[in-house]
Amino acid sequence: MKILITNDDSIHAKGLKNLVEVAVEFGEVIVVAPEQPQSAKSHSISLEKPITYKKSNIFGDNVEAYYVSGTPADCVKLAINNLLPEKPDLLLSGINHGDNTSVNLLYSGTVAGAVEGAMHDIPSLALSLASHDPEADFTGANHYIKKVIEFALEVSKSKPLCLNVNVPDIPLKEIKGIRIVKQAKGAWFEEFEKIPHPNKNANYFWLTGKYVNFEPENTDNDVWSIQNGYVSIVPLKIDFTNEVIYNEFKDYKF
Amino acid sequence: MKILITNDDSIHAKGLKNLVEVAVEFGEVIVVAPEQPQSAKSHSISLEKPITYKKSNIFGDNVEAYYVSGTPADCVKLAINNLLPEKPDLLLSGINHGDNTSVNLLYSGTVAGAVEGAMHDIPSLALSLASHDPEADFTGANHYIKKVIEFALEVSKSKPLCLNVNVPDIPLKEIKGIRIVKQAKGAWFEEFEKIPHPNKNANYFWLTGKYVNFEPENTDNDVWSIQNGYVSIVPLKIDFTNEVIYNEFKDYKF
Repeated sequence: MKILITNDDSIHAKGLKNLVEVAVEFGEVIVVAPEQPQSAKSHSISLEKPITYKKSNIFGDNVEAYYVSGTPADCVKLAINNLLPEKPDLLLSGINHGDNTSVNLLYSGTVAGAVEGAMHDIPSLALSLASHDPEADFTGANHYIKKVIEFALEVSKSKPLCLNVNVPDIPLKEIKGIRIVKQAKGAWFEEFEKIPHPNKNANYFWLTGKYVNFEPENTDNDVWSIQNGYVSIVPLKIDFTNEVIYNEFKDYKF
Repeated sequence: MKILITNDDSIHAKGLKNLVEVAVEFGEVIVVAPEQPQSAKSHSISLEKPITYKKSNIFGDNVEAYYVSGTPADCVKLAINNLLPEKPDLLLSGINHGDNTSVNLLYSGTVAGAVEGAMHDIPSLALSLASHDPEADFTGANHYIKKVIEFALEVSKSKPLCLNVNVPDIPLKEIKGIRIVKQAKGAWFEEFEKIPHPNKNANYFWLTGKYVNFEPENTDNDVWSIQNGYVSIVPLKIDFTNEVIYNEFKDYKF
């Protein structure tokens, strides 16, 4: 089995290294990852400048690896079209340093890497640990991601699959299990902080803010799950049509 | 009524100017748009550098306008949190130079601008014309976008609304009408073209490629609609949970 791995924290991230170690137990691994961090780059692709890649031996002689001057979506496109002789059997994106629950998946380069694979009918998993620490402990993530990969390989035999997986940042023995849930409803508020600048009239802001959970009582979503010690899996779709609105208005007379 | 306008082709784009001219007929317009083109930046946000904005009089004394050093999503966040005294009644993103049908919406900064508004419960419309020409003729787009805005204002009284609107690049009198449809299923293939480089061993690629329609017989989607002379409206949702997979596996025992 051939496994393509990408991420958005760059080829140097600890989360990527951990994911390679997990994935080699399942098959032949090829890494195609960004040269520079691409957090919050969402599904950006490089249209305005050419992209380039170089081979890397960062993971030793047994793992083919490349670093690319673009985004996670660029990496997956380049891998599928130019670097791999044929479509991989599985795509893993991550392990991201920081969770990608709820609407955060919209901003996430990690999730975009997986979605790009799913667009080409490759079973694709976005994998994130709820810690931004560059030296985060991936013991729990490694253990549970193996189980998620086993599930994905089994299910994807019969249907296309794109999963958004988040792991809580707690010791392995405290993780209570894996739950298949929905994307939590919420949004970010109070998002900018003005920063001092030598020019008093200049308006410079850091993006910051506070996530507000629109359904704190609902236990059937990814935010509740990782806050309560579970690994969350949200199955994703690439069709963003709102079927409810569509069905209500499809015969509207303009 | 207060209308927030953004886009991804920058504050200098003809499509934005046209949209302002359409929108002033409906209410007070405030433009918050990127300083630089942001095509294919998807839902990127600026986490690694501060953003700044400046006031502009590009649209005259009656239209408040700002240009921002970030992405369309940054523009909407900054507008809602810092520039507007209260939430706008309507958000318009575009008019994009180039269509955003099918999976192209994933890569689109224009659509991301609208989705960011919808995350804050603002009725939000992504508007695109199927021509990349900087001097494209927006006559048909202007005419039909007015009708779409009227529809959106009516419907959004009773429910949240996020619409992805595409207009065919044909003369106004040839446009056959407006259809409410689904996102077409398709993907891009053969996506990279190697380019000559003084260093023969360098690997430089332009992203290019060919869109493949996975359902050419299906008339009930955005691609068919604009290819056949209709304005398409795809209602979007922000929850990307795949309900079919979720329902099948929610009780799976790991």
